[in-house]
Amino acid sequence: MASHDQPAFFSLARTLRAHRSFTAEPVSDDHVALILDAATRAPSAENRQPWHFVVVRDERRRAAIAGLMAGIWEGMAREWSRPRLDPALFDDVDRGFGGGLADAPLMVVVCGDTDLADRGVLASSIFPAVQNLLLGAHALGLGAVLTTIASTDPGPIGEIVAAPDSLRPMAVVPIGHPARVLGPSRRVAVGDKASLDTVGTPWPGAASS
Amino acid sequence: MASHDQPAFFSLARTLRAHRSFTAEPVSDDHVALILDAATRAPSAENRQPWHFVVVRDERRRAAIAGLMAGIWEGMAREWSRPRLDPALFDDVDRGFGGGLADAPLMVVVCGDTDLADRGVLASSIFPAVQNLLLGAHALGLGAVLTTIASTDPGPIGEIVAAPDSLRPMAVVPIGHPARVLGPSRRVAVGDKASLDTVGTPWPGAASS
Repeated sequence: MASHDQPAFFSLARTLRAHRSFTAEPVSDDHVALILDAATRAPSAENRQPWHFVVVRDERRRAAIAGLMAGIWEGMAREWSRPRLDPALFDDVDRGFGGGLADAPLMVVVCGDTDLADRGVLASSIFPAVQNLLLGAHALGLGAVLTTIASTDPGPIGEIVAAPDSLRPMAVVPIGHPARVLGPSRRVAVGDKASLDTVGTPWPGAASS
Repeated sequence: MASHDQPAFFSLARTLRAHRSFTAEPVSDDHVALILDAATRAPSAENRQPWHFVVVRDERRRAAIAGLMAGIWEGMAREWSRPRLDPALFDDVDRGFGGGLADAPLMVVVCGDTDLADRGVLASSIFPAVQNLLLGAHALGLGAVLTTIASTDPGPIGEIVAAPDSLRPMAVVPIGHPARVLGPSRRVAVGDKASLDTVGTPWPGAASS
């Protein structure tokens, strides 16, 4: 299939990047409405839709969330991640937690509703919606990034957005206008991530992609 | 924002449905290649890409997977789900496990690689990719459905696709040409699933969507 015949979704998916620095330009409620509507169209176990999106625009709360993430990063995750990440990605993540994420004009705290779904099935019903959030932002020319570091301990982040015990913060997605143009994403080739029928049997379609 | 100004992604996301019945028409490797490429463009913690996709085309293995899902459904999940699902959804799911899913010309068994990511962060790095699988299939006019029932016990499904212990089956996505045209999805309104700054504060953008 020639690339010009491909539906637009594939180029949207292929150009999705993790944005961790943002301009001061605001994001309109209309755009957020579109993005959230897309998120709620994701599938969920038993169609229970166990999500709740807290759109954090308040400056003090955004700063508190950014501070929380920076604290976990600097206190623990930074030195764990340093040898595991390639240097360019490490620098980008480090700059993000060091201030870039705090510049986002809004952050969406994505909560999983334990009254609607058991904790064991919550992630499979929440992260498809989060991917729609990211793709929706990207489709509008906005940048976003999936972060889960604040959910390491759901207590403090839950307190910032006044989440009841039944709503478990599972991701924070800062959204804004990208401050930097990012190049293509780095991914292992599909052929090394796919098999035919049994693991280890080469998948023949990889060469044609 | 008028609907004709919206990027195509939003109508794609909005019309995504769970397809559980398929025609006999095959799905080409080129299409699977596009779909898998989109899946691998999803974000993952530390960009570790802890996914492996087993494209199951072999008829006996597909029948074994369908039989496994039917067994779990009939043995346990069916009576648990019956009072929890609306009747139309229950009937569709029941028909799917009763034979509809077995008709799909291929099933993608999505595995999480525990050598690349801790089990605790695996789901947030796998289900965004699964959502891209579903959207990619939909973009090509194919139907698909996210199922996790076979992962209740990763042993038997892992055995069918010869997955080593490090590859944990987390989802099975049957893909094929839809046998039925499905109407709009049923979702709770965004306004009931979103808050501004703190849980319970109405999000003002809901009315404008």
